[in-house]
Amino acid sequence: MNVFASKPILGISMGDPAGVGPEIIVIALGRPRVRELCRAIVIGDASVIRNVTKFVNSSLKVRSVAKVSDAEFRPDTIDVYDLKNVDMEKLPLGQVSPMAGHAAFEAVRVMIKLALAGDIDATVTAPIHKEALVAAGHHFPGHTEIFAHFTGTSDFTMMLAAENLRVVHVSTHVSLRQACDAVTRPRVLKVIELASDACKRLGIANPRIGVAGLNPHAGEHGLFGCEEDTVIRPAVEACRAEGVDVSGPFPADTIFVRARRGEFDVVVACYHDQGLIPIKLLSFGQAVNVTLGLPIIRTSVDHGTAFDIAGKGVADAESMVAATLLAAKLAASNETKD
Amino acid sequence: MNVFASKPILGISMGDPAGVGPEIIVIALGRPRVRELCRAIVIGDASVIRNVTKFVNSSLKVRSVAKVSDAEFRPDTIDVYDLKNVDMEKLPLGQVSPMAGHAAFEAVRVMIKLALAGDIDATVTAPIHKEALVAAGHHFPGHTEIFAHFTGTSDFTMMLAAENLRVVHVSTHVSLRQACDAVTRPRVLKVIELASDACKRLGIANPRIGVAGLNPHAGEHGLFGCEEDTVIRPAVEACRAEGVDVSGPFPADTIFVRARRGEFDVVVACYHDQGLIPIKLLSFGQAVNVTLGLPIIRTSVDHGTAFDIAGKGVADAESMVAATLLAAKLAASNETKD
Repeated sequence: MNVFASKPILGISMGDPAGVGPEIIVIALGRPRVRELCRAIVIGDASVIRNVTKFVNSSLKVRSVAKVSDAEFRPDTIDVYDLKNVDMEKLPLGQVSPMAGHAAFEAVRVMIKLALAGDIDATVTAPIHKEALVAAGHHFPGHTEIFAHFTGTSDFTMMLAAENLRVVHVSTHVSLRQACDAVTRPRVLKVIELASDACKRLGIANPRIGVAGLNPHAGEHGLFGCEEDTVIRPAVEACRAEGVDVSGPFPADTIFVRARRGEFDVVVACYHDQGLIPIKLLSFGQAVNVTLGLPIIRTSVDHGTAFDIAGKGVADAESMVAATLLAAKLAASNETKD
Repeated sequence: MNVFASKPILGISMGDPAGVGPEIIVIALGRPRVRELCRAIVIGDASVIRNVTKFVNSSLKVRSVAKVSDAEFRPDTIDVYDLKNVDMEKLPLGQVSPMAGHAAFEAVRVMIKLALAGDIDATVTAPIHKEALVAAGHHFPGHTEIFAHFTGTSDFTMMLAAENLRVVHVSTHVSLRQACDAVTRPRVLKVIELASDACKRLGIANPRIGVAGLNPHAGEHGLFGCEEDTVIRPAVEACRAEGVDVSGPFPADTIFVRARRGEFDVVVACYHDQGLIPIKLLSFGQAVNVTLGLPIIRTSVDHGTAFDIAGKGVADAESMVAATLLAAKLAASNETKD
């Protein structure tokens, strides 16, 4: 069966059921544009999704299915791959709980399995809560590491994509001292390749890539650190020799200004906050997190579980809408390539 | 003589004469608001300033003086403390030259001497070019270090102040690895004190100070680094015990979003790019650089010599205008305190 007969099938993991994940999914699946570009199946607990449709005043029905091929993808319905692992009467909204942490983890784990089996074409994740994961005995710093683990991937990275800025990171969830150590020539090379490949899949034929320096003023000719000269520039030059339109290292305090003006399609950031500070300032709540380097497509919202507003029906679903549309676009591009 | 009889006297160093410094000074001194709040004297070469008045079509006359007390501060005139050290016929506009580097350095050195002697009440600097300084045999990474050297200051720091964001830095012109080492308890304490003091002088009676973490997610409870727990939080708590309204450490990727929304009057950044990335994204060309901890007042523009547009009369003088107004404000606040 060609799953692309009509539109890509997206799995959307429910996230922590005590957070805003389920409600932003229901709101996003009410958008005509989302329905137009994909067939979505939520991975999680159907009773959670059903409860949400009430308090967000959604007219969508919820249909529990036991396998992806049972999903009907009707416009008036949300198909849920039902894991039946949340007891709604015992779910403390807006709080850390082992039950919620385990349900959130299982949704991701099962979704990855479905994607690896080819039952779904791309995955989208709603926010999970790290303390809840830990309370449930699942010790992962975040989604990305769960995906890396269950897909057996070592060379992966995080891209954040907003309307006017895309950033790919050399490292993410490590201390700043470890981030300095992570700036190696093979890693920078790999990240430039991943950035280039991701842009191409987003429809940019010849992506212009700017690489930020690790140190202030990109090292100021070795005065404030040497990684620019010993590691980053050689990696950039090696990629240029392969025909990649990449330049740098440039001072980190102006490269994002230049990118926003349109000079680069994507910026390679040397560490987590170097890329996250500008993205969150420019596009908080509108950016999409894409994990690059995995054998499957994965996008995510750019925010957390927002326990303080969970269950109130006031959560902003824009990042979830954007994550869904981007996953659909990447899946369609995969199809074209195949 | 009480120099505050009317308005504070500001020294403005000319900057590298091959860059945009002289022209943004002439434009700023043409603004009625600047004239209203201060009496300005340019420190540099009068022939450079005279030449600029021609190509920026300024109607201001240039008057060469040999000491500050000779300045007349007439509204139609720019008084220049004339160092007579630039040969206009040999000055290569838009290029590094030892003559220009030396003239830029001398303007700063003499201005600091005048400020320490009490002849001027505050100092404002136009951009210098590091390579030109070095070509002239003056080995300093930048203005701040020149000021620290000639005023014998060791505990200083850089504040960047824009309309909607103020940032003070734990360290600036060092490698990122050295910046990690510079995050010590006494240093963070000192920088919080400097930030608090600066805000008070800017008219904020009880400044709300937010401190950023060094590591991603502010260390995520020790998972991505320990400096938040061992260094930053104890420093914040010690300052709170002294009655300072300071909180943190907070994740660096959201603290600037929160500050922009009005939650903090000033953010303490742990390293150069952590503070400079958000300031330049939000306010490039409008922010003012203030050196805190010096025995004299010093503000500066937030940009460089812009050799590519020097002498064309197209440079944007907004940052120089803002730097001048802020220096006048700080000088007036000094006067009130005395």
